[in-house]
Amino acid sequence: MRRVLFIALISLITLLPVSGASPDEEALFGFTSATSHTERDWENKFRAIPDPKLMRDYMQRLSARPHHVGSPYDKQNAEWILSQFKSWGLDAQIEQFDVLFPTPKERVLELTEPTRYTAKLQEPPVAGDPTSNQQSEQLPTYNAYSIDGDVTGKLVYVNYGLPRDYEELDRLGVSVKGAIVIARYGNSWRGIKPKVAAEHGAIGCIIYSDPRDDGYFQGDVFPDGPMRNENGVQRGSVMDMPVYPGDPTTPGVGSKGDVKRLALKDIPTLTKIPTLPISYGDAKPLLAALKGPVAPESFRGALPLTYHVGPGPAKVHLKVAFNWDIKPVYDVVFKIQGSESPDQWIVRGNHHDGWVNGAEDPISGQIALLEEARSLGQLLKQGWKPKRTIVYCAWDGEEPMLLGSTEWAEYHGDELKQHAALYINTDGNGRGFLAVEGSHSLEKFVNTVARDITDPEKNISVWKRSQAARLTMGGPEDRKDARARPDLRIAALGSGSDYTTFLDHLGVASLNVSFTGEDDGGIYHSIYDDFYWFTKFSDKDFVYGRALSQTVGTMVLRFADADVLPYDFADFADTIHKYNDELKKLLKDKQEQIHDRNQDIDDGVYSAVSDPRRPTVAPPKEEVPPFLNFAPLDNAQNALDRSSQRYSKALKSFNNANSSEQLQELNAKLIQAERKLTNPDGLPRRPWFKHLIYAPGFYTGYGAKTLPGVREGIEEKRYQEADKEIARVAKALQDYADAVDSAAADLEKAGH
Amino acid sequence: MRRVLFIALISLITLLPVSGASPDEEALFGFTSATSHTERDWENKFRAIPDPKLMRDYMQRLSARPHHVGSPYDKQNAEWILSQFKSWGLDAQIEQFDVLFPTPKERVLELTEPTRYTAKLQEPPVAGDPTSNQQSEQLPTYNAYSIDGDVTGKLVYVNYGLPRDYEELDRLGVSVKGAIVIARYGNSWRGIKPKVAAEHGAIGCIIYSDPRDDGYFQGDVFPDGPMRNENGVQRGSVMDMPVYPGDPTTPGVGSKGDVKRLALKDIPTLTKIPTLPISYGDAKPLLAALKGPVAPESFRGALPLTYHVGPGPAKVHLKVAFNWDIKPVYDVVFKIQGSESPDQWIVRGNHHDGWVNGAEDPISGQIALLEEARSLGQLLKQGWKPKRTIVYCAWDGEEPMLLGSTEWAEYHGDELKQHAALYINTDGNGRGFLAVEGSHSLEKFVNTVARDITDPEKNISVWKRSQAARLTMGGPEDRKDARARPDLRIAALGSGSDYTTFLDHLGVASLNVSFTGEDDGGIYHSIYDDFYWFTKFSDKDFVYGRALSQTVGTMVLRFADADVLPYDFADFADTIHKYNDELKKLLKDKQEQIHDRNQDIDDGVYSAVSDPRRPTVAPPKEEVPPFLNFAPLDNAQNALDRSSQRYSKALKSFNNANSSEQLQELNAKLIQAERKLTNPDGLPRRPWFKHLIYAPGFYTGYGAKTLPGVREGIEEKRYQEADKEIARVAKALQDYADAVDSAAADLEKAGH
Repeated sequence: MRRVLFIALISLITLLPVSGASPDEEALFGFTSATSHTERDWENKFRAIPDPKLMRDYMQRLSARPHHVGSPYDKQNAEWILSQFKSWGLDAQIEQFDVLFPTPKERVLELTEPTRYTAKLQEPPVAGDPTSNQQSEQLPTYNAYSIDGDVTGKLVYVNYGLPRDYEELDRLGVSVKGAIVIARYGNSWRGIKPKVAAEHGAIGCIIYSDPRDDGYFQGDVFPDGPMRNENGVQRGSVMDMPVYPGDPTTPGVGSKGDVKRLALKDIPTLTKIPTLPISYGDAKPLLAALKGPVAPESFRGALPLTYHVGPGPAKVHLKVAFNWDIKPVYDVVFKIQGSESPDQWIVRGNHHDGWVNGAEDPISGQIALLEEARSLGQLLKQGWKPKRTIVYCAWDGEEPMLLGSTEWAEYHGDELKQHAALYINTDGNGRGFLAVEGSHSLEKFVNTVARDITDPEKNISVWKRSQAARLTMGGPEDRKDARARPDLRIAALGSGSDYTTFLDHLGVASLNVSFTGEDDGGIYHSIYDDFYWFTKFSDKDFVYGRALSQTVGTMVLRFADADVLPYDFADFADTIHKYNDELKKLLKDKQEQIHDRNQDIDDGVYSAVSDPRRPTVAPPKEEVPPFLNFAPLDNAQNALDRSSQRYSKALKSFNNANSSEQLQELNAKLIQAERKLTNPDGLPRRPWFKHLIYAPGFYTGYGAKTLPGVREGIEEKRYQEADKEIARVAKALQDYADAVDSAAADLEKAGH
Repeated sequence: MRRVLFIALISLITLLPVSGASPDEEALFGFTSATSHTERDWENKFRAIPDPKLMRDYMQRLSARPHHVGSPYDKQNAEWILSQFKSWGLDAQIEQFDVLFPTPKERVLELTEPTRYTAKLQEPPVAGDPTSNQQSEQLPTYNAYSIDGDVTGKLVYVNYGLPRDYEELDRLGVSVKGAIVIARYGNSWRGIKPKVAAEHGAIGCIIYSDPRDDGYFQGDVFPDGPMRNENGVQRGSVMDMPVYPGDPTTPGVGSKGDVKRLALKDIPTLTKIPTLPISYGDAKPLLAALKGPVAPESFRGALPLTYHVGPGPAKVHLKVAFNWDIKPVYDVVFKIQGSESPDQWIVRGNHHDGWVNGAEDPISGQIALLEEARSLGQLLKQGWKPKRTIVYCAWDGEEPMLLGSTEWAEYHGDELKQHAALYINTDGNGRGFLAVEGSHSLEKFVNTVARDITDPEKNISVWKRSQAARLTMGGPEDRKDARARPDLRIAALGSGSDYTTFLDHLGVASLNVSFTGEDDGGIYHSIYDDFYWFTKFSDKDFVYGRALSQTVGTMVLRFADADVLPYDFADFADTIHKYNDELKKLLKDKQEQIHDRNQDIDDGVYSAVSDPRRPTVAPPKEEVPPFLNFAPLDNAQNALDRSSQRYSKALKSFNNANSSEQLQELNAKLIQAERKLTNPDGLPRRPWFKHLIYAPGFYTGYGAKTLPGVREGIEEKRYQEADKEIARVAKALQDYADAVDSAAADLEKAGH
């Protein structure tokens, strides 16, 4: 699971206008007045079922022992989940894939100069926390998919290890060539750090959790408080996920049976240099031994020392070696066959594997999924018959690299592309505010559902509470939107959980849903993410667990039962306007900035400010970006405006659910419309990523890049490529607009 | 001396357009082509004289022992400076005033609950630093003009202790009533902290230096580096200076002879609660013992702990008692009689007293003044005869509260109001970029001088280097100005050094000048501000000391010799436009902000976001600010635009220095024009502050408030008062515009 602070999620919050109450008499979005009534009944019944007490029991059971990929308890959990599903009358089975999953064989980190220190690389048990002493079953602290390596070199501190950090180091005249870098966790997918370090010539990479980011700077540390203590380490994958996720030996193909696999040496997504995560207890002597320039202010963390960048005099020895084994992952899947449109699927998932005991990540989400499943089972017994097919998936192997979901989705790719109308993901849950990221054709749908869910702490709707968060904590633009825009924005999906393959590889409209914002935590991917921590510091009454079940369950029911699938294209069109404006501004700002900087370089401005005692290096001169041809995008945007407006109008006057066959066709067309946003060639240099509107950034990982071909083309100075990508995106949007237009025509016919 | 980081000074930097070279053939501003030539000769001679080696000797001599007010070495330094002046042929004398200067009798700070800790309150000697062991002569660490007191109470952490910090505490439901507050140094004049604490009901105030602000977070600590170590304490005055500076027993009157004094109990500017400064070594156990809400992120410093705000459970006992003695201060003053206009004075000063050894503060500035004096002596011997009278002042008693300068300027107030054309202040010096704050009628003058001074590290003019700093480190507005505006901006003067009385009480156009920006320091007002520190970590070759002598000396010569005093009113008018725009925006932003917040309060937005486990309190509803009548200010601004343009035009065509009598009258008129910006009634509730354009903020101290009556009226929600203050400022500006217009008419007559 991706870990983000709530403040970063604020733009993901679903918000609705204060006036947007949803009286029972109003037709539900995608339903007629008549079908709305029935739907509301079933939804009300559904929402009454999820039970916090059961959720607590599930969590205690599932997080009782370490349950990472390949562990005995991982398999036991899968089997237990299967038995639960079956006990609720659901047609469930385990689907197994076999994946490359390295585990540590040897881990050494030593400071060898100017003093000696051997890193402990241990998370000790904590008094009062009963599962923290299960050392024999715990995975050691490590980064999965680091290569084996044994390196010694001078140390350089590189802040978060992002490209802009290396630019700052360049200004200080500091190179990492031949050095081992130490980067702090945060501000990117962790796999970006060794990737960028290797691109700059480093020979090893250490990643540590600075107390500034999730330790004592943020709050009291475990076990007195929820934050990371000096021994806590963040495990995690460092694969080059923005190239492709899933089993690295089988890109694009499900790892089942005797699938053809890449040899280890041919896998492009392993790190190029050995990488190891450490605690701030272990990082402190290393950082204290650095000299060289004082780190720029944005580099400085909360350790009680002066952060220097090096290189050296600190010298470190880093050795890591792994068991490169193929391990089984166990996806637990059940299907409820649709009564009218069995070929239209609603897919919903949450992973069940953890790095260690994983109570928060992922069990706090898994228990919501379980209660949804139990509730669906009860509804079925009461006679509910969903129009469409519902597929529930408890994924395995998310932590190493979305293994269970990716292999499953690749294996079932053709079916999914044909049938999947929606994928809804969760992955951990906390207290607070509803946070939704996803496809913007679902923005209105999300807004309508959020009205119908009650916040357990405030007894107001979750949308009203989220709107309040935006009004008090958001920036000026957020506040303006929260007051004025009819539907409030959801953020785009980057990566970090199991929606990735559905959205980015297959083009299935997707959502990621959670409650968050009230509790901080610093136990992410450590042994301290356990039942003790969760029931002391997070949603200890499991009332937000219930709210999550209610939210996602309502989404599933409504999408499964709707007469017309509740996509909306006007919000999507508006979002494209926003992205188009952003890209134009990005280019213009870069033109001005590079022009001015070039002039400053020519004028000797940089040498004029350089302090002779602490000399700085002027940045290199750069080509001023050329103007790009945005006309195709503007034209496509125009077409999308027109067709989305036509569709909205047609849907508004739709009130006839009897022409079932016509609707079937219309809905199939809507499902296929989403695929128009993908391209079989994928993105430049990463063909696995097919979506032209959303992708995880090549240098952000978690963070989304929207219109990624164009945006990264500009950001990474490939202007010709950006020009071409504008044309590709414009073509996709034009096709999408045509599909919407055609759907609008069908709807006009069917609805009257 | 006020201590500010360079980044905060960036808007003070004097900058000039790249194209603004000053070829010798161009007439100097305020001179004719003929007189320019002679002036340049003298200035070139002057600038060749200051000698870094002598400066080093002076510093070693003056900082050899502690030299605070009332100490033997303070008096010896004054006598030594006098003897130097005399040895250079200058007509110098010591002028003594007798002032209230409390020194500590008893200092106790203890943590009594939940654990015990007794604060050390000691700065130990440091190996290698030869003056750090002069304990018998060092003033203990304390805050001057704290009242005596003996209090015990729960502790509350209040961040910087500013009004907005207490608003944040209100949101957390935390009150300081009956509590002792601990505030960190920084972001305001230190006297603001006990003042605001007392306004909120606190009974005691501790001020500590957080390592975030000038300790290890910023760089290596003394003696390994220049920053504050765990024992370093910032001494300093906590008098309520924004009410009036100087001897608190004699507001507005020079403390000489048998002057009538206020009784101790009647002094309004002593703190209301006992106050004591401590090191971060002493602060750490206190802060670690706090519970209650985790401090908001903006409150958190760099100690390795979770910052909580309290109140308690930490309980502290604070006891301070002082010797409330009258002590002598020794101002050392020399005068060079003007040859043509002896009644027009150029005044220049830097203090000589320190809190302890005070090498950087104030001796690094004092040695520049000394070399200016020696150089002036040489020029006089070579036959130079300044037109106007030059007065040089080595002030005593600046540290306690601008005592020497204020008492002198109050004592000589009538003469100064009549004669003083300019006051130039320095107070400490470092390496880097020219930083000038001052009256905007001098902005052009400052720009012209900065062209003629060579940067010792870069061998380019100091204006070019300062412009480069603005271009690389400034915000977007700074960069735009640095590229495009003919004269580059100087910042307004708040307070924090000896210019205060000249500008704010008497209305004399003033400047404060230094070089800064390349070296950080954390020894401010500690025993470690000494010769060892300065020659290891600052301008160790004294080349910027020489540059400061050259800059200020050139200013003095040019103002003393000019045919027409080089004021300019167009930049001043432009600055008034800026302030007027700022005030209108301030009001509009406040109207919108309060309106929106009131609506959010009514809508229950704050209660909707409040976390039941960590409840927050909604802000109170407030009156939406009314519209104010800016018309008088707009009209005055218009008048100033017209008269300043007329004056600039007249000055441009001026090329006749022969009409000496006419010019004498014109210059006298120009000197008096500046007084039009003052009002005998002063500012609301602080009548000592007479200037209506510039003042130290009532809640900032160091930071300037421009058009302070209006601005603080709006900020502090006294809208009727703000309306009245607009009219008062407008009247002053109108009178000023009339004076400028009249001067322009004279110049038109005289110049042809």
